[in-house]
Amino acid sequence: MGLGSFVKIFLPKDKVFYSLFEEVVNNLKNMSEIFIKAMNETDYNRRLELLKSLDEWESRNDEVTHKIFIELGSNFITPFDREDIHYLATALDDIADFMWGSAKRMMNYGIEDIDDVTKKFADIINRAVLSLHTGIHELRNMKNLRAVTEVCVNVNSLENEGDDLLDKGMVQLFSTGTNPIEVIKKKDLYQMLETVTDKCEDAANVIESIIIKYA
Amino acid sequence: MGLGSFVKIFLPKDKVFYSLFEEVVNNLKNMSEIFIKAMNETDYNRRLELLKSLDEWESRNDEVTHKIFIELGSNFITPFDREDIHYLATALDDIADFMWGSAKRMMNYGIEDIDDVTKKFADIINRAVLSLHTGIHELRNMKNLRAVTEVCVNVNSLENEGDDLLDKGMVQLFSTGTNPIEVIKKKDLYQMLETVTDKCEDAANVIESIIIKYA
Amino acid sequence: MGLGSFVKIFLPKDKVFYSLFEEVVNNLKNMSEIFIKAMNETDYNRRLELLKSLDEWESRNDEVTHKIFIELGSNFITPFDREDIHYLATALDDIADFMWGSAKRMMNYGIEDIDDVTKKFADIINRAVLSLHTGIHELRNMKNLRAVTEVCVNVNSLENEGDDLLDKGMVQLFSTGTNPIEVIKKKDLYQMLETVTDKCEDAANVIESIIIKYA
Repeated sequence: MGLGSFVKIFLPKDKVFYSLFEEVVNNLKNMSEIFIKAMNETDYNRRLELLKSLDEWESRNDEVTHKIFIELGSNFITPFDREDIHYLATALDDIADFMWGSAKRMMNYGIEDIDDVTKKFADIINRAVLSLHTGIHELRNMKNLRAVTEVCVNVNSLENEGDDLLDKGMVQLFSTGTNPIEVIKKKDLYQMLETVTDKCEDAANVIESIIIKYA
Repeated sequence: MGLGSFVKIFLPKDKVFYSLFEEVVNNLKNMSEIFIKAMNETDYNRRLELLKSLDEWESRNDEVTHKIFIELGSNFITPFDREDIHYLATALDDIADFMWGSAKRMMNYGIEDIDDVTKKFADIINRAVLSLHTGIHELRNMKNLRAVTEVCVNVNSLENEGDDLLDKGMVQLFSTGTNPIEVIKKKDLYQMLETVTDKCEDAANVIESIIIKYA
Repeated sequence: MGLGSFVKIFLPKDKVFYSLFEEVVNNLKNMSEIFIKAMNETDYNRRLELLKSLDEWESRNDEVTHKIFIELGSNFITPFDREDIHYLATALDDIADFMWGSAKRMMNYGIEDIDDVTKKFADIINRAVLSLHTGIHELRNMKNLRAVTEVCVNVNSLENEGDDLLDKGMVQLFSTGTNPIEVIKKKDLYQMLETVTDKCEDAANVIESIIIKYA
């Protein structure tokens, strides 16, 4: 936010968007690193601390997203199409929302054993977010279009991995899970984790449409 | 609808949108008042009558929403951005859809006991809809921007209340609910009620983006 | 795709969109015919073969949809509003996604008995897709606006049928289904099938908004 104010004074007005989007992906990177750390933490209480800490990051992200929408409403000149800014901000905000949503579900449902499917989801999400982090930082100069294209391809392939993992997780759940309540909880968690990867793909698709227009 | 025809003759073409949006929130206000009344009705049959009556309101709302899209397609001049009209009409229509959807679930699932979580959702929804009612009636003159901003802040905070209520409801359900079928039914109902508050927030966010542009 | 290249050379650039959308609905028609055939196939293994074959069709559809977005990014002139192209491509892509998603669920959940509700959904989806097929092929010449309007009305009424079928299916499921795991599986399948009809309606609504603007 300090950086945001700095940029407002010294840079052309429309550069604000780059800084705000960078702030958002920096937040997302932090969130997904905390999340993966939590998934590999064997101590339940320490894991809870990590999961709870995502709440604050998600609120912080809400504020930056809100700023993007306010800037969008008050700026005539934008670095790329207004609708792309709108879609990208929404997709990135959804990533934070559903990551925090997954964390909340684990806590609310009292899920104590983090299974392999969940750990693999945390890894896929982390790799997708790191890719988006690279892609959005490249948007500012638009010099390395090849790198941005690679990001989009990579996130799309990670979303496919997420899809397959959900399928595998569900097959496993229905074949081994005898307790219906456990099935309900895990199904809900897996689907939400898969939604995080969907939202990463949405963000990558907007980035792709931006670079197509400016190529 | 009578008013709609009147406006078409005597007012500039683009004023039609205000009247149509007002007709929509008036419908929503009626629906949420019927809904809250149903939730507090202890007689099962009388409650069913109230819930069933929402069907007709929802269809009526569909028609007005459809009119908005037709006007949007045939008018070059609109009082605010075309995309905002599209988003606002969609969000308001979703509120009606999901409110009626919640009512249908209660009937289809044979939910006879209206628990505290459900009653609280009805109250949150009602307060959010009343807020949107105020906000949309203020849009026409754009004189009281402060009041519209308050509406947006209020609906956002009610959506947060809805989020917390869903969390609380789910924790309660999993800790006390021994019958998996009951868990499935209630989880579905709570999630749909929470979606109503999400859609109220979506509508408030569009209203906010409209007033930012015209401030 | 062969046709796509042909059109690129001999026709004005913006005609590409008609060909791509026609390719998409041709794919959808094939998919929904395979789907309905699978639902009426009593031999489990032959049914599995049919369901599995939808995967390839869905991937092929993804590629055409991707092409539409690339053309949208690189063309200044489009035959109808950019946002309508975006919405229509997204809705049609969702139809393929959710149809394949429904097929996957049946396989992953090991659903061997295709009940009447599922068969009726396959029929509703097929009729809606055939209607969209007609509507999109009519878009190119815009001569028969009445036929396009009929398509939209028809798809909307099929979506209503889908809604009622879901309601009926759920009531049946909860009144007869004693096994909670079965309830979870079927509920998930029915909801996904109903989502296919929602996406058909979304596509029809975009088509309607296109013809309103060009009438």
